[in-house]
Order: sequence, then structure tokens, then C-alpha cells
Amino acid sequence: MAGNSIGQLFKVTTFGESHGPAIGGIVDGCPPGMALTTDDLQLDLDRRKPGTSRYTTARREEDAVKILSGVFENTTTGASIGLLIENTDQRSQDYSEIKEQFRPGHADYTYWHKFGIRDYRGGGRSSARETAVRVAAGAIAKKYLREQCGIEIRGYLAQLGPVKADLVSWDEVHNNPFFCPDPSKLEALDEYMRQLKKDGDSVGARVNVVATNMPVGWGEPVFDRLDADIAHAMMSINAVKAVEIGDGFAVVEQRGSTHRDELTPQGFSANHAGGTLGGISSGQDLLVSMALKPTSSISIPGKSINTRGEVIDIVTKGRHDPCVGIRAVPIAEAMLAIVLMDHYLRHRAQNMHVQVTTPDIARNSRD
Amino acid sequence: MAGNSIGQLFKVTTFGESHGPAIGGIVDGCPPGMALTTDDLQLDLDRRKPGTSRYTTARREEDAVKILSGVFENTTTGASIGLLIENTDQRSQDYSEIKEQFRPGHADYTYWHKFGIRDYRGGGRSSARETAVRVAAGAIAKKYLREQCGIEIRGYLAQLGPVKADLVSWDEVHNNPFFCPDPSKLEALDEYMRQLKKDGDSVGARVNVVATNMPVGWGEPVFDRLDADIAHAMMSINAVKAVEIGDGFAVVEQRGSTHRDELTPQGFSANHAGGTLGGISSGQDLLVSMALKPTSSISIPGKSINTRGEVIDIVTKGRHDPCVGIRAVPIAEAMLAIVLMDHYLRHRAQNMHVQVTTPDIARNSRD
Amino acid sequence: MAGNSIGQLFKVTTFGESHGPAIGGIVDGCPPGMALTTDDLQLDLDRRKPGTSRYTTARREEDAVKILSGVFENTTTGASIGLLIENTDQRSQDYSEIKEQFRPGHADYTYWHKFGIRDYRGGGRSSARETAVRVAAGAIAKKYLREQCGIEIRGYLAQLGPVKADLVSWDEVHNNPFFCPDPSKLEALDEYMRQLKKDGDSVGARVNVVATNMPVGWGEPVFDRLDADIAHAMMSINAVKAVEIGDGFAVVEQRGSTHRDELTPQGFSANHAGGTLGGISSGQDLLVSMALKPTSSISIPGKSINTRGEVIDIVTKGRHDPCVGIRAVPIAEAMLAIVLMDHYLRHRAQNMHVQVTTPDIARNSRD
Amino acid sequence: MAGNSIGQLFKVTTFGESHGPAIGGIVDGCPPGMALTTDDLQLDLDRRKPGTSRYTTARREEDAVKILSGVFENTTTGASIGLLIENTDQRSQDYSEIKEQFRPGHADYTYWHKFGIRDYRGGGRSSARETAVRVAAGAIAKKYLREQCGIEIRGYLAQLGPVKADLVSWDEVHNNPFFCPDPSKLEALDEYMRQLKKDGDSVGARVNVVATNMPVGWGEPVFDRLDADIAHAMMSINAVKAVEIGDGFAVVEQRGSTHRDELTPQGFSANHAGGTLGGISSGQDLLVSMALKPTSSISIPGKSINTRGEVIDIVTKGRHDPCVGIRAVPIAEAMLAIVLMDHYLRHRAQNMHVQVTTPDIARNSRD
Repeated sequence: MAGNSIGQLFKVTTFGESHGPAIGGIVDGCPPGMALTTDDLQLDLDRRKPGTSRYTTARREEDAVKILSGVFENTTTGASIGLLIENTDQRSQDYSEIKEQFRPGHADYTYWHKFGIRDYRGGGRSSARETAVRVAAGAIAKKYLREQCGIEIRGYLAQLGPVKADLVSWDEVHNNPFFCPDPSKLEALDEYMRQLKKDGDSVGARVNVVATNMPVGWGEPVFDRLDADIAHAMMSINAVKAVEIGDGFAVVEQRGSTHRDELTPQGFSANHAGGTLGGISSGQDLLVSMALKPTSSISIPGKSINTRGEVIDIVTKGRHDPCVGIRAVPIAEAMLAIVLMDHYLRHRAQNMHVQVTTPDIARNSRD
Repeated sequence: MAGNSIGQLFKVTTFGESHGPAIGGIVDGCPPGMALTTDDLQLDLDRRKPGTSRYTTARREEDAVKILSGVFENTTTGASIGLLIENTDQRSQDYSEIKEQFRPGHADYTYWHKFGIRDYRGGGRSSARETAVRVAAGAIAKKYLREQCGIEIRGYLAQLGPVKADLVSWDEVHNNPFFCPDPSKLEALDEYMRQLKKDGDSVGARVNVVATNMPVGWGEPVFDRLDADIAHAMMSINAVKAVEIGDGFAVVEQRGSTHRDELTPQGFSANHAGGTLGGISSGQDLLVSMALKPTSSISIPGKSINTRGEVIDIVTKGRHDPCVGIRAVPIAEAMLAIVLMDHYLRHRAQNMHVQVTTPDIARNSRD
Repeated sequence: MAGNSIGQLFKVTTFGESHGPAIGGIVDGCPPGMALTTDDLQLDLDRRKPGTSRYTTARREEDAVKILSGVFENTTTGASIGLLIENTDQRSQDYSEIKEQFRPGHADYTYWHKFGIRDYRGGGRSSARETAVRVAAGAIAKKYLREQCGIEIRGYLAQLGPVKADLVSWDEVHNNPFFCPDPSKLEALDEYMRQLKKDGDSVGARVNVVATNMPVGWGEPVFDRLDADIAHAMMSINAVKAVEIGDGFAVVEQRGSTHRDELTPQGFSANHAGGTLGGISSGQDLLVSMALKPTSSISIPGKSINTRGEVIDIVTKGRHDPCVGIRAVPIAEAMLAIVLMDHYLRHRAQNMHVQVTTPDIARNSRD
Repeated sequence: MAGNSIGQLFKVTTFGESHGPAIGGIVDGCPPGMALTTDDLQLDLDRRKPGTSRYTTARREEDAVKILSGVFENTTTGASIGLLIENTDQRSQDYSEIKEQFRPGHADYTYWHKFGIRDYRGGGRSSARETAVRVAAGAIAKKYLREQCGIEIRGYLAQLGPVKADLVSWDEVHNNPFFCPDPSKLEALDEYMRQLKKDGDSVGARVNVVATNMPVGWGEPVFDRLDADIAHAMMSINAVKAVEIGDGFAVVEQRGSTHRDELTPQGFSANHAGGTLGGISSGQDLLVSMALKPTSSISIPGKSINTRGEVIDIVTKGRHDPCVGIRAVPIAEAMLAIVLMDHYLRHRAQNMHVQVTTPDIARNSRD
């Protein structure tokens, strides 16, 4: 049934298959009065798009987005925003032989059982190509949050296979094709990727996303917690298998005396929480981390079955990312932006009139 | 705004504060015709309820649930099911002194900023007491899934602080107050908890939940993926800071040739995926793991501020769990049941007529 | 499936059968900081409750509502508000003989086919008793709208069978058991009701609801129009068969030159529109009218079938309203309040920052 | 906020302004396995499209729909269906002078106050042009309901100004540009429309829609009743001011002994209810009627104000329908189809296993 929407007040609905004529979506709920042009979306789309470095798939898509509605004289009107990205480099012939095959690690088997029909060309609806629309929609949210709320949302590659990278510099993230924040790790990454290509294999990755300059109070108690909605959004990204907020799994071995971030007039003493308390933003930086599995499309032959249940040998041809985690950085930023935008609108719906004289200590620590 | 509901077709909405007259909820969307009495709910409520061992809070609640509607002659009618649990052991006096204090690691500060008013008695709406209703609602889902679909949902404590426990035996889980599946670890757990109590501190935990005998095809593509909805549900549990499906964060260092579970007519060759492919259940066991932070209510004094922004010393009195992860096992089971029930109904709405002759290989491996 | 909720940001979910232990509901999304006690709800509940005049059912229910959560020290906290009303005058024995009968005009036949099981006692979930919870929830919305937005929501009986009543005086509505705004019609109403009782028959009614002092701009374009959501809410009331906004069906024979309400600096020249343009409130009074069918529970014998498809004679015993339209006035007010409250919150989520210098002409006309 | 979606399981979301590059939408939740091509949608689009007779607007739009996703090898896949209709005949110059004017009876004034910005070209988002996407989406639902459930959904013009038309023949509806089911009324309609054009005025209309061969049991108790959702859907159509189910407002003067449709083994004795009991379909024909206001775009000069609050004279130029009710017939059919499709999916989610031996008497009467 209907599962192609996310968000309640800032709602994004998408459509499109990897090898259909186009992909696209509708952003419903963007407030009126924000300056917006396709340039605002294209920047992030270009960061995500394939074919930009030798480390990602050779498929080339222009990913040129069109805004079909909701913007008048370069300003949002409050009407739903229609987005369209044509598919230009499809090469359907690459996929004909997998028509009746279930590629291991792919959604082929589950889609087939669920729907009884499968657009087998490049994964169809299950293709990561769908995430381009998320990035376009997320760019709208990012712009709004930056301009209206001062929030900055940025991601980076924190680990690729065995190579870990610390957040040395946000600026560095844009200077290399890995979204790597530590320039000293670029050589190791390059070397690892070369070996991976030689092996015909793929590898997993860890991506971190951070929202800075967060206000206090976003998120709804109980089920629609900010952290719960972030977990949902991140886990909805293709290949993501795990999500952490703040210290994440490290809390298992932590003591309460260590974990609790003490409050002082100058700010929180630490940020183990990762920016939420009781599911509501605390004003601390929002720290989100996720794991992306290695892409299952590799050139090492494997075993599988076909639609008749027969044993087959399978080699995934075509052009694929050896590490889907690399291009996931702008996608993760987009998803965080969509969730935050939704909660911003939800927050102001209910709590517009709330005023407390208690200081926002996280803000104190920033000033 | 409205954030107290979860699910679309099997929808659970809850209300209630720790120290109000009662907590409760509404389960909307339970199919008609299922036998149901309060006994079916009470079993899981008793597993969660406080005061059952020396390792959990000394607060004693009967947690006796009443079914107020939706059941006629011990059978569900398809009408919404009203649930009510009275609060019996409240002791509001315990909490009066924290009225203007923000306890570190608690939702006090964020609720105050968000709402401008706070039911400070025992955490109010942010109290884990709210999870009792989840357990009651989840018990309805668990029963339906077991009886109609043959699915079994079971959880266990996989780690408490430094003490790890493997799944040695499901039966063992019920034989000890830790929900520990490995009897050889009970002594270590007991010892660790004694020391913790002596220290006046708390510790985190890892809880695993497994759904066995899963059908293929549950979950919706793109945003409403089964794994994404599970991540949302788990992260909505108080204190949860991280969620994994299948191999989780271990995939970061995995190769694609290792991770992909090959398909054979006799079943999947492994279960790195943890039961979903493309966000849709594969028929493999559903493997979910989560981290719960150490409770912030400890007797070690800490620093904080009050509602006027002044520095204060704080010691959390009252009766608290030194490890909230222990009692989280039935809660995690309940949340997984709610998500699965919702997706079961969603699946049959859209795909009732789908029939494929392709064998369900996961089922093969079970037979 | 789940159909027991209404509203998106101000969401009301209800449960309860006519002859169960209690009915109740959850109001999720009420902003924090509003003074609220059960007295605020009881006033409207008393207006709706049965047994208050000889013109309504002799069933006596105290309809005493309890607020179980979401209110702390007589102030809303922003948490979900649990409402409970116990059923006190049930007399289940009255209904035993209709166990296998389908009463004409009732939901017996459709519930039976839909669910395969039916709580036959007094209509079960299909009983108008369910509307008591709507009235309680609506009272919260009415209070908020009145105090925060200055909106007044009032209804009246506009027609009962052949007896029509004009809006002579709002004050008069409270002075008689018919909610009739024209004192000159009371005798005719009394006479008609006496005859109806003598005949053992029932009759339909028209109820009007008006919201005055409306702001401009509430309602969302396209599907979630204010008028569309009002139509939904009103048609969801038991027995309602038709809904009009403004001139309603009279527009069929109107010319555009008549219908269009011209704008002047002093206000709209008329109110044919009934308070919405393009689905958005115009600041004109919101004019809603609805038709309620005659109750099907009459003592005139009728033909029907039973669950085995056999022909039966049927006489509805029990205590019933000869005109359900009378008690529908507070219900219709409540539903309008719920819709307006929801749209108020939705409006401020998206358009909080919108400011235009164009005068609100409807306000001009009021000043 | 987000208001451009309708439906829960069969969800339609639309975008697009009258004078933007394109309009379109996403149909999410269509079951897989149905044959579908653009031809299936084009038929209804052609019935709605402007410029087909001298009685409707002279604007000419091809309204050629493209299916961008969700259909593979002419079969639905279960993925979201992207629909696109380019705007070809826009003539933006026609609208420049109304940039700062509020046309009476239009949404200009309310959009301006709500959003602070307005796409003034042809009504922008408030234009009835948006309904083309509804018709395309509805055509998918109609096809599914016809082929899978045997339900036929048909509408007709029941009244135009003073000229009433009875349902003489369904076939006749397609033989004239008025969607008039009574050939004897065509001359009167033609004459009336000629006079209307001469007068430069417009007029209202009544449109009826009927669903035949309905199953028993669709619709959810309490808020999401079938009739309530129909009322919502119909009132969401531009210009609709009133909705009736079955006898509608005639019930106000009816007695219960008349209104209740008695049940016999051969079927219901009548259809006053219009196909629903307790908000659930009874198997009787679904009878829906609605009133459409006269279009406000007329060439008779009127008074209004501009964005600065100044008095202005206004004459609506451009090409407009003198009676929007005429082209509303396929729109009303589409909306009914969307609602029924949604409730079909909802019904089978919850009640798939329900089986009663009680005969479906409505079906009896059809055989």
C-alpha cells in the first residue's frame, strides 16, 4: 500500500523507477515566501549524482531537476512543489538477463514475492536512483532551516571498510570525492578502493550527519520523538542497516554517571545524548551515525535461484558503486533535513505561544 | 502536536502520566474474530512490571489492565479497543523538590522549553511508565501474529554493561529476572548489579528481539520499509539510543561477497541481512538489536541548573531501575509486534491477490 | 481498519460501546497552557445527555467525564488528554431478542457483514452514545478557540419535520429543550412531538451551526479544504445524510451575479459563500447546515430478516429519541470545533510568518 | 501545510498550477497486476477537458497524460504511479491586470491572506485545472473497481439552473455535451445556456453520481465512514457547496416509518439510505448528489477591493465555463472512485477473513 511518503506537515512523496522515463516527487507543506530556484536543489543533486569520480558508478545521469509548481516568481507559494528528474542514461539492455534471476542481497526476491511482478531493469523502484528525489526535496528543507532557523546540516564519511576518518574539518569534506573530513586518510581510501575494484568486491561504510545550532524543543513525546523519526528516515535509505543517536551502542557499557550530560549555565558539560532528551531536541548538536552495507552488485560470481526456484550462478554486471556509502552523505543530510523541517512545523503548530524565561544553555555555549 | 500514535492500520494511541490517576490507550484496527481476554495482556504486563526483583525499581504497580471496549463475549469485534491501567503506587511527595530542577539526562529541560509547563511528578508523560500501555497493546498484536501467521516474537538481554550473553536457550530467558538467555552469565550479572547498587550508579544494556517464522513480502518500498518502521518503533522506546537490523554496524567493515546472503532452494545461506531486503521481509528471521542508555536517575550527586538558570546540586531520589534495559525486553517485543501487525494488514490490503509459484525458500529451510 | 480518529494536529480518537463498561477517548495535540477542568467539558455533555426532557430518550446517563491525563494543576500540558465516561444505565436485557435480527435503518446488517460479529446491545459501537466523547473533546476545542481566537461556535435546530425555525435569538436556544432559536415555534414543536409519540414514529431534522468572528486563511488548498473537512466531520455524525456550506443546494438555481459576495472595504456585501472561498476561511461567518434522518428505532412494526436470511417482524423496543436531531446540536458544534481547531494548528504551522497589509474586511464589518 | 493528498491506502497527491509548465500527481497504493495504459486514463480526461463544446470554456488543453512510473509492460507493479499533464494553452498575458485584484467569489482574497503571495495567473493552485489530475487518478480506481469488484461508477447532470433532468438513460449521458441523462431536456438546456451567455452570467448545477453493484461492508465505523469520506471528497471539488447521500435533505421532513428501508430476502424494499447504514456500504446503490455554485468569473461588472484595500470595478475576462457543473461529472465520478478504492483496500486489510452465511440481499435483488 501507500508507502512512498514521509513527513506529516512537510510531506515528501516520490515516484519513479531506475529505468522509467523519469523520477520525481511532490513536496507538500513548504511554507510560502522562501526564495527558491532549481539552482538551490541542483547543488546537492550534483553532490549525489553518479559518474563524478572513479570511485562511484560509471552511470552518468545529469540529474537536472525541474520545479513544476509551487514556486512563483522564484518564491514558494505554499502550494505543493512538483519535482521532475528525467532519466537519461538508462541502457535497459544491461538488465535483460536478470529478468528471472534473484540477485543475492537485492530486493529482487522480496519484490517478486510481494507484488508478483517486478520491473527488473536496474532494480526498478528499489534502485538507489530513487534517492535523487530525496536529495532534491531535502535541499528545500535544508535551505529553509538554514535561512529561517540558522540550522546547518552536514554529513561526512566516518568510515569505509577498515579506514576510519575523524571530523578534522568540515571544509575538507567538499575537497575530495569521498566526503572524507580528514585529508590524511585520502591516500588510504584511494588505495583501499583500488584494491576493492581489483577484487571485484564492495564494502560497507559509516556515515555521520550533524545538525548544529539546534533550537530546544523540537520533537513530540512518546512515538513521534525526534530521534525515532530520524531513525526511521535514516533506515529508509537504501543499504542502511543501523542508526545511532549520540553515543549509540557505546551506551551499553556506559555508567549513568558518565552518560548524563550535566547542565551548566554555560551549556551542557558534554554531548553523550547526541542532541535529544526524551525524544525532544536539547539544543545540543544533533549527532546521527549510520551503517551502510556493501552493495550486493559485485563481479564476484555467486549462487542464487531464479523465479522457478532453480539454482543459478550469478554475476552482477552493469555499473555499480563499490561503496554506496560514499554517495550516501548528501542523502543522509537530506533525510535529516526533511525530518527536522517536519518537526519544526509540528513544533510551531502546537507551541507557538510557549515562552519560558529559562535560558537556552546550549545557545549559551555557542555564543 | 499529536505524537502519541503509532501505526496506520493497526494504530496504537496512548495517554497517561506516571503520577496521574491512570494510563491507557486505544488499539484501533485489530481484526474482528480473535479470542481476547485481559489474561492475554496481563502475562506480558507482569513481565514488564516493576517491583518483581531486587534488580529493578522498588515501585510496585499492579498494572492490572482493563479492556473497556472492542471485545464482546471474549472476542474482538473490529471496534477500537480501549485499555486502562490505574496507577496505584504513586507517592507524589517523592518528587516535589525537583519541581524547578532539571535532572541531567532526563527530559525535564526539553519538556520545559517545549511546553512551558511540566508535570514534574516522576517524569510525567516522559516516564517509562507509559510503556506499560505499549506492552498491553503489543500483546494483542503478538497473539494475532502467533495464532494467525505462526510468527513468534521473543526478546532477550544480550548485554548488560560489560556482561555479554549469547542466545543459548529461549527457555532460559523466562527463568531469571534478567531475561538472560545464557544461564552461565547469571552470576556475573548478579555480581555486577550488586556492585552497581553499591556505587549508586546505573548502566546501559543491549536488548535483542527476534521474529521467527516470518512470511515473505511484508513492508512497503521506499519510506515505509519494514526495517525503517522497526527502527522508528524501537527508537521511540525510552532510553534507546541505537538500533540495528541484522549485522548492523558490523557491515561497515564487511565485504559484499560476505554480506550478501546467497539463495538456495533449501533456504538462505546465512542471515546477515537480518530478515529484510529492500525494506521487505525475506522470510529469514527478523533480527533486531538495540542499545539502552543507563538510567539518569542515580544517587551519585551531579550538577545541573534550575528553571531560573541557577546552578544546583542534584541527587535523584526515588525508586529507579539501575538498568532500564532489563525491563525493556517485553517492551521491545511489543513494539516489534505492533509494527509487524501494522505491516501485515498493509500487506494484505494491497497484495491479497498476489500469488507466485516461486518457492518461499526461507520456509524450505525451516521444514 | 483504524477509523476511530479525526484530525491531524488536533486528533481525537474514541472507543466504547453503548453497553460496555465505559466510553472514552484521547485528545492528542491540545496546546499546552490552557486552563481546563472537567467542568469545562461537563457543560456541553449535559446539553447532549439523554433523559433531560420528555422529548428525548428516557435512558438516563450521568455522562460524568473524567480527565485522566494531559492536565496538570488544572492546566493543559501538551500531553495527550485521556477522557473517560462510564456507562451507568445499560439494561442489556432490553436488547437480547434482537441478537439475530437486523433492524431496518440500523447498522446491524452492515456491521454483521463487515465484521462477522456484532455487539448487538444497543447498537454497540454504532450507537449514538459514542458521540458523548466527541462532545467532551469538542468542548476542549471550543474553549481554546473562544479564548485564544475569539471564535464562537453555536448551533440550533433549524427544522424538525415540517416545523421550521429561524435564528431569532441565540439566547433563546438555551431556554428550551429543542435548541430552538425562535420562541414562537415552541408550541408547534411540542405539539408535533406529542403526535409523533402517539404515532410511535420518528422524524428528521435540520441542524445549523455557525462560527462567528472567524479569521481569514484557515483551510488547506485542494483536498484538505476547510469546507471539505467540515463536510466529513458532519457526515460522520450518526444519522446525518446531507451537509451544506453557505447557500448549499440553493446555488443550483443561482446566477453568478447573485452568488458572488462582493468585497468592500467595509466587509463582504453578503454571505452566500458561507465563510469559505477556495476551501479557505474568508472571515465571513461560517455557515453549516445538515440533515439528520429520523431514527429507525420506532414502535411501528416493520419487516426485516434475521442472520439466517429469514423474514421476521420487528418492533424496536427500548428507549429512543423520536428525533435524534434535537440532541445533535451540541454534537455538531463539537465537530465543527474539532475541525476548526485542527485547521488553526495546521494554519499556524505553515503560515505563522505570513503578514499582509491588506485589511481583513470581514473584521471591518464586525467593528 | 500538507493538504494535497487524499486517501490512506489508495492515496492521491497532486501538484500544479493553471499556468505553470505542468500539473501532475502520484497515485500511491494501486495494487499490482492490473493492466493499465494511458488510454485508460485519457478517456475520462477527454470527457473533462475544456474546449469540447460551445457550452464550456474556449481554453483548449490537450490534457494528454503521461504515466511516468508504477507501470511496467502495461501492468501496475505496486509502485507509486507518477502522472504528468503538460499545460499547453496558458496565455498568461490574460491575467496580468488582476494581479492586485481580488475577484469576488474567487480564492484570491483568501489565498492572499493565507500565504502572503499568490500565483494570480488563472487562479494558480485554486484553478479547477487541478481537477484534471483527479480525473486521471480516479480513472485508475474506476478501472480497478470495475474489473475486480464489478462496481460501475457513473454520474450525470441532474439540474442546471432551473432545468431538471431525471435519469432516463445512462446511455444518453454520453450523447450530449451536458452529461444530461434525459434527451427531452437538451433543448431547454441549450436555450438556457444561450441566454446565459447573452447575459454574461453563470449558473449553478446539481450533479449526481451513482455506484452500482456495491458489495456490503465497505467503510469504517465512527469517523472514517464511507459516507463521511464521500462528503469530504465531493466537497473538496472546486465550487461544490453541498453534498447529499440518499434522500439527503428530504429526510428532514420524513418519518422513520418511511425512511427506513426494510430488508427482505429479495433485497431492500427501497433505497432512502442511498447505500450506507452506519457509514458502511449496504449493497444498495450508492447515491450521491452535490451542488456546484455558479462560476464567479462572469462578464457582468462587479465591485471589489485590491490588495491595498481600495475599491475597484472588476470584470472577469478570459475564457470560462458559464456552468462549471457540466464538466464536473467526470470529476465527481473520479472522486467517488478514489474513495471507494481506498475503502476497498481498507476493508480487505481488516476483514479479509470474515465470512458470514447471511445472504447479501442487495445482490439478491440484482440477480
